[in-house]
Formats: sequence, C-alpha cells, structure tokens
Amino acid sequence: MNASPYTLLSRSTECQARCGEIATLHGVVQTPVFMPVGTLGTVKAMTPENVIEVGAQIILGNTYHLYIRPGHELIRSFGGLHQFMHWDGPILTDSGGFQIFSLQDLAKITEEGAAFRSHLDGARLFLSPEDAIEVQEALGSDIMMVLDTCIPYPATREEVAKATALTARWARRCREAQTGTGQHLFGIVQGGMYADMRREAIEQLVEIGFDGYALGGLSVGEPKEMMKEMLAATASHLPATHARYLMGVGTPEDLVEGVYHGIDMFDCVMPTRNARNGMLFTSQGRLVIKNACFQHDQRPLDVTCGCYTCRHYSRAYLRHLFQSREILAYQLNSIHNLYYYCTLMAGMRSAIKEDRFLDFRRTFYEQRTQLFEEH
Amino acid sequence: MNASPYTLLSRSTECQARCGEIATLHGVVQTPVFMPVGTLGTVKAMTPENVIEVGAQIILGNTYHLYIRPGHELIRSFGGLHQFMHWDGPILTDSGGFQIFSLQDLAKITEEGAAFRSHLDGARLFLSPEDAIEVQEALGSDIMMVLDTCIPYPATREEVAKATALTARWARRCREAQTGTGQHLFGIVQGGMYADMRREAIEQLVEIGFDGYALGGLSVGEPKEMMKEMLAATASHLPATHARYLMGVGTPEDLVEGVYHGIDMFDCVMPTRNARNGMLFTSQGRLVIKNACFQHDQRPLDVTCGCYTCRHYSRAYLRHLFQSREILAYQLNSIHNLYYYCTLMAGMRSAIKEDRFLDFRRTFYEQRTQLFEEH
Repeated sequence: MNASPYTLLSRSTECQARCGEIATLHGVVQTPVFMPVGTLGTVKAMTPENVIEVGAQIILGNTYHLYIRPGHELIRSFGGLHQFMHWDGPILTDSGGFQIFSLQDLAKITEEGAAFRSHLDGARLFLSPEDAIEVQEALGSDIMMVLDTCIPYPATREEVAKATALTARWARRCREAQTGTGQHLFGIVQGGMYADMRREAIEQLVEIGFDGYALGGLSVGEPKEMMKEMLAATASHLPATHARYLMGVGTPEDLVEGVYHGIDMFDCVMPTRNARNGMLFTSQGRLVIKNACFQHDQRPLDVTCGCYTCRHYSRAYLRHLFQSREILAYQLNSIHNLYYYCTLMAGMRSAIKEDRFLDFRRTFYEQRTQLFEEH
Repeated sequence: MNASPYTLLSRSTECQARCGEIATLHGVVQTPVFMPVGTLGTVKAMTPENVIEVGAQIILGNTYHLYIRPGHELIRSFGGLHQFMHWDGPILTDSGGFQIFSLQDLAKITEEGAAFRSHLDGARLFLSPEDAIEVQEALGSDIMMVLDTCIPYPATREEVAKATALTARWARRCREAQTGTGQHLFGIVQGGMYADMRREAIEQLVEIGFDGYALGGLSVGEPKEMMKEMLAATASHLPATHARYLMGVGTPEDLVEGVYHGIDMFDCVMPTRNARNGMLFTSQGRLVIKNACFQHDQRPLDVTCGCYTCRHYSRAYLRHLFQSREILAYQLNSIHNLYYYCTLMAGMRSAIKEDRFLDFRRTFYEQRTQLFEEH
C-alpha cells in the first residue's frame, strides 16, 4: 500500500491536464475517467454489458445504500459486489459519508462516528470509520473511500475547521482499520470553501498516506464560480504521484474544467438521472426529448454520436417511448448519455496524449451552439 | 394472396399437434410459435436484440395503441413500424377490435364500424373495417388482422349470432379494402361459447378466403374448462392448409394444450407483464421473486434455463433489484420469462418433428412440482 497505484503517462504542456493509469485488483483504468454511478448494485436501467459497451471502465457503488439494502453481509456471502452484480471491472465505493450528510436531521455526527436513521424504515444505524472500512471490504470494491464529514454550504470558518479536523482523524482510523485486502483506500479533502484549509487538509492526508486523493464537499450548493475557484486553488496541491478524484461532479463542462486543472477521476448521477428524465447530452448542447419539435424528427439524437441508441433510433421514436413511459426509453437514453460522457473522456485522453488539450477544450465550447436551449 | 403462406412440415401421429412455416415479407416463421407483445412499438423493457436473443421470431403490435399514439401516419412517414422501432423480423398487428371492445362504455359498435373514445384524452375516434386495413397497411405489418367485434362472456345465443354475423361482414370489407401490399390478412373466428356458431363462422371466413385463421374471443373471462372445450371443438375445423392462431392466449399450460389441438400461433402479455410484477416462469412452476425465501438464494431462477438472466444473476440479486424497484429488474425478468416461453415452443417443435409430443406434454406436467406454489 506504499507504492502509488497511479502511473503518469503524459501531461499537457499548456495546462495541468494529464493522462495516466490506475492499477486495481480488477484491471487498469485509463485516466482521466468518468465513473457511472451504480447506487444499488446496478447502473440504473443498464446491464453490465451496456455499461462496458458505452466505454465505461470503472463504476461506483454507494456504501450507504448497499449497507441498508441488501446489506453488506449478504453481498459478502456472494464473494463481493462484483459477483453479486455481474461486473468484472473495477469498482469504487464511496464511504457513505455524503449520503449520511444528506440525511441532515436524521444524522448525528460524534467523534466516534455517524449515528443516523435509515431513509427506508427509520431504523437506527451507526457507522464509524472502522465500520466504513469493514463494509467496503465486505463489498470488495477496488477503491475504497475514507469516511468523511461533508460540510454544508455556507459554513463558517469555525464550523469548517472543526469538521475538517474530524475528517482527518477519521481518515487515520480508516487507514488503520484496513486488513490488507489489496483494496486501495483514498483520502478525502474537505475544507469547505476555504482554500487554505483545504491545502492544510491535503497535508494532513498526505502525511497519513493514501492510495489516491479526492476533493469532497464540492458541488454541494455553492455557486459554480466558487467551485471552479476551489478546484483551481487546490487540485494542483494534490500529490502529482497519485490519482486525483473530484467527487460527485458533474456536467460535461465541469469534466472539461476538472481535467484542465489536473483531475483524473469523476463520478456523477447526472448522465443517468437526466437520461431517465428525458434530458439528453449532445455535441451541440442539451436536448429535451419530450419537446414537440422532435415529434416527426427522423434524425438520431446526435448525428456525430456512435452509440447504440443513435445508430438505431430516431428522436421521434425516443420521444414516443418517453411520452409513453416505456421502460425502453430509460434504457436507450441512459446508454446515450453515458456514451456521451465516456466518449468525452476518451476524447480528452487522446487530446492530452497528442498535447492539444486546449484546442480540444476550445472546440468543445464552440460546438455547443445552444441549438436546443430555445425549446 | 391465394396461395397459403403456411407450409406443413410434420404432424404428430397421436394428436393434432403440427409443425410448419409461415412465409412473410420479413422472413419465415417456424411454428408453433409464441409472439411477444410489443404494444406501443416496443416489447416492454427489452431491446429488439434482447427479443431476438430469447428466441422470438415474430412480435405483435397493437393497432389501437399505435393508432392513438404516436399515430399511424407518423409511423408511415418512417416507412413503417419495422424501421420506426428497429425490428427487422416479422410483425403481426391486431386490428384494434379487442382493445376497443375492452373500452366497454367508451365504445359504440354500428354496421359502419366502431366509434370510441381514446383512453388517453377522451378524443372521439372512429375505426371502420376499411380504416383498420389502412392503418395496418401504414404500419406495414407482415400479418394484419380483420376488424372483429369481440363478444363478452357471458352472452346469449342471440347476441352472439348478431355479433358474429357483423364480424363476417366486416371481414369481407377488410379483405376488399386491401391494396395489394403483400401483407397477409387473417380472418378471426368469433362465436362466443357456442361451438356450432364458431364452426359456421369458420365456413363464412373460408368462403371469403384469408391467409390464415384466428380464434378470437377466448380467454375473455370464461372458465378455463370452457376455453379448452371451445378449442377442442373448433381448432380442428380450421383449414389445415392455413396457419391457426389462438389470440391472446396464454399460460404455459394453455400453449401446450393449444399445440395439442393443432394451434400454430399464440400471443399474450403474460410473460412480460408477469415479469414486471416479479412473477417468473420456471420448469418447476412459478416463482414470486419478492418472497423472503429468496433473500440469500445464490441459485439462478431456473437451473435448467440458459437465458442471459439465469447465466449471470442469482435469485437473491433479482430479489434485491425488484425490491429496490430498479429498472434492471424488469429487463432481466422479462428476458427470462420470454426465453422460457420461446424455449417451450422450440421444445414443442422438436417433439413434434420427432413424433414424441405426447411424451413431451407428459414430462411438462410432471416437472411442475409446484415447488414454489407454497410461498
């Protein structure tokens, strides 16, 4: 657990963007990478084969959700989440911290850990840093995350300082709780919207030593500009020897900006959730499939897209399925949106390798003609 | 349209069961065959590739539903339903008669046709026999059905006689309305639960001359024994030179009994609807996936099944998905149930070709140990 699982392959000469690889128990991940979210042991509305076909290399599982349902002991009895859900590639699990934080009044944080109530049946539950590791070791993910205390926005310096210090103590307890399974453990940088506190948090985490480092507590309601500012002020302070993960982010624009600042890993429910709500990403901007203008439209969602959905179905058909609430609508839309995200990442990897990332970024913004925004 | 598209390949020497082929514009169908229902231009929760993979050869589209949404003119502008929904195999469309009949108080039948209100928005609509053909020609299905008046159960001889006579007159108008597209047109035998009236209806239809013949108005609420009685009393009177279709039927047992009596084609929403409700068909009987006994069950749904779902997923995982209302549950369950139905039909075809159908039927019933019925 001393050597970094991250290998740098190439770096932009114009910005912080970089290409690399992360070695895991279930194979190597090419970065920068987007990780589809498979909350409950399934990337919603997709088979694992669909997920591979859209170009995903690694998926994310939510410890909080799996802990509550179906329970980590059940998954352990299957030999882990991979076998349970029929996914042979790498899996990253979060620690549950963010979801518990989201429960707000249903959660109480103490030095020992987080006491909370199940969002399903109100059952009283408790998760300590040691529990978070035990659960993630039972799930058998390739990359585990430390239990952190997420900080709401806005928060005072004092509140942030207190929570950040606790996160650091919990991080150390997580590291010490590992039992040598070969799973990686990533630290999480908190610090609210205070760049100096985030840099201090990085130093504390690096001193403990993790297999990778994540920026947490961003995209929690703060203005977009503030998120960008935090990213710019902290990403380059994360050790260049290790993978850098921007948690829970984001839009296609966020991915491009994250990579620009040297981020290697992203996850977000946006592509799959928006797909189920009929909002599709295209090279020209966003498209709301229920709009009447698509009723007779025989074109694919995106003429430049090579996904299964765009190869075989028209906007008119997809609109019909969505309006009829057909399950196939959610499948086809999810395939398209995730293909869009994964292809965007692959495009960035190529651009970095050929040292033309700024060009790629410029073209990305120029293509977005806002063609559909009017609808 | 004079030569029968049906070719007899082999017949049981012990009963009416038979194997054959139906030639269509989109390929040849091996019979006996089960046709998955794709009401709105999609077999619910499945891609066309899934449908092919489970062994389906031909699917059914509902004229009533497609007429209302998205409309046959829209589908015509795509060159037909095949192109619209990305399905290159044969399609059979019903005429809309059964759905209009199901609207009950919202429908009014006259000599001219059926006046009804849309179940979606209450719009006043009208469908004559000529309209039913025009719509189905726009959809471009391989096999069209005549517009019929379905008869509720119970009904008096007088009511049945009236409706059956009207169906015969409408059948002739449908035949005359065809414009020579090469699509087949099947007649529908009504006659309620009166075998003699059904035999008379057959004579009238044969006199007009159709490309195949269907038994309609069964499985409309009558006791199972009565359905079997009607089947036994009429199936053998359908011309042996043509395909025989038992509409809207049924359970696995119904399929076996139908084939026994010489039926070639079946359709039913049961495998896909039950799949979405968590009721799975197995060689040993039915299984309700939400039952607690499956919580830790690492076995597939059916150890004898070779479907995608049984090859990769456990009962415990499928239960977890179903309890969590994950969309993947509906996909995997639908794949399994349709595979079960299509494999049952393939087994019957083999048994007939090897002249051991009665053996097959006996084994089918013996295997059903009712193992899961207790739950």
